[in-house]
Amino acid sequence: MVLVDARNPLNIGAAARAMSNFGFRHLRVVNPYEVAFQGARSAVGAAEVLASAEKYETVAEAVADCSLVVGTTAIGHRDLQHSIQRLEAAAPFIRAHLGSGSCALLFGSEKFGLSNKDMSHCHWLMHIPTREEHFSMNLGQAVAICLYELIRDPGAAAETEKEAPASSAETERITETLLTALRASGYPKLNSSDSFEGAVRRLVRRLHLQTGDAEFLLGMLRQMVWKMKKGGEAEG
Amino acid sequence: MVLVDARNPLNIGAAARAMSNFGFRHLRVVNPYEVAFQGARSAVGAAEVLASAEKYETVAEAVADCSLVVGTTAIGHRDLQHSIQRLEAAAPFIRAHLGSGSCALLFGSEKFGLSNKDMSHCHWLMHIPTREEHFSMNLGQAVAICLYELIRDPGAAAETEKEAPASSAETERITETLLTALRASGYPKLNSSDSFEGAVRRLVRRLHLQTGDAEFLLGMLRQMVWKMKKGGEAEG
Repeated sequence: MVLVDARNPLNIGAAARAMSNFGFRHLRVVNPYEVAFQGARSAVGAAEVLASAEKYETVAEAVADCSLVVGTTAIGHRDLQHSIQRLEAAAPFIRAHLGSGSCALLFGSEKFGLSNKDMSHCHWLMHIPTREEHFSMNLGQAVAICLYELIRDPGAAAETEKEAPASSAETERITETLLTALRASGYPKLNSSDSFEGAVRRLVRRLHLQTGDAEFLLGMLRQMVWKMKKGGEAEG
Repeated sequence: MVLVDARNPLNIGAAARAMSNFGFRHLRVVNPYEVAFQGARSAVGAAEVLASAEKYETVAEAVADCSLVVGTTAIGHRDLQHSIQRLEAAAPFIRAHLGSGSCALLFGSEKFGLSNKDMSHCHWLMHIPTREEHFSMNLGQAVAICLYELIRDPGAAAETEKEAPASSAETERITETLLTALRASGYPKLNSSDSFEGAVRRLVRRLHLQTGDAEFLLGMLRQMVWKMKKGGEAEG
């Protein structure tokens, strides 16, 4: 469970309480408003979860060891470039993944939700099926509903994936090396910077790489980077 | 939705907000702490629900016109004399009933839940499947989860039609271009020829590329191939 830019201590506390209710232990907070993070520690029954909560500066660091990253969104009127699932349809995928790897669920700030940059670290997005006329949910309630859906119907068998999925850190290394390779190759669209980087980051995550394949690809890309940089200096 | 003895304005507001999120209109409050009821009126997006909320002195009056009354409980250590259902199992009965009659969902106070007297007005009880070690939920979150379960759609399929998967011809073009790039880069294992080509071909297929992504990747690879070959001739 990763809370990004949470501002209200009551919401951080409520998220931790729901985690405790449903048996989820690892809370990570990215760039929390300091007073909120401290203030949350009084939430009923959430002491254990909050005491072991970890603080991060960036989403990339917070999800580095997770092999599936799912963002939550109210949709609203934003143009989203990710694939989006309803919560009911998303939960079985997440449960299946938890059989073989770790998963990060990302929740954005109360006011703005996840930024496009935050979302670029996600494999896909999910949303709670609210009314179109009032889709903005309270953060603590949204967290509680998502966790409930995950523990709901414990009889449902989880299919386990064969090979271990690549972690976010591995996936991000590929993203970085691919961007380096594109820069070295003189790829034309790179100047449009942020949005292009986001597009590459999303592309790499859509590949759902397994650990072995991630290593394989990384080796290929590094060789190409080496060759392109060498070619630029002198031919030996 | 009937809130009995609610004491915290934030919880009344949160309950109303979740009702609005999920399209439930009729909020009734029994014996609310007056300040709480007034204070709740500032809850985000819940104005309509709260404005039409009705106040009652007793549970009996609040549920008088309902043909099914379901109480919520955290169970805990109380001896209950009602039949109790898990929320997942209870929801279909409630939904079926709503087709022909009205139903009241009763929630007790934050601290004590429903009293035995309150429960005596219920046909049966339901509980949210929390951990035994921490079964006490925040009122606003419990309400949100119950309403979500009621509107939840077990048949919900993924809404966003996925993009078309890349054809075998497209996938093979990427394989070929990747092999060309590896050759141009001087990738060491290429000499073991056939088996290595097979490994690359399988890798590319495991990516399950969508059509758009396949084009994107192909463009990147071609740019790198161009750069590597150009570097090998002369630097211009």
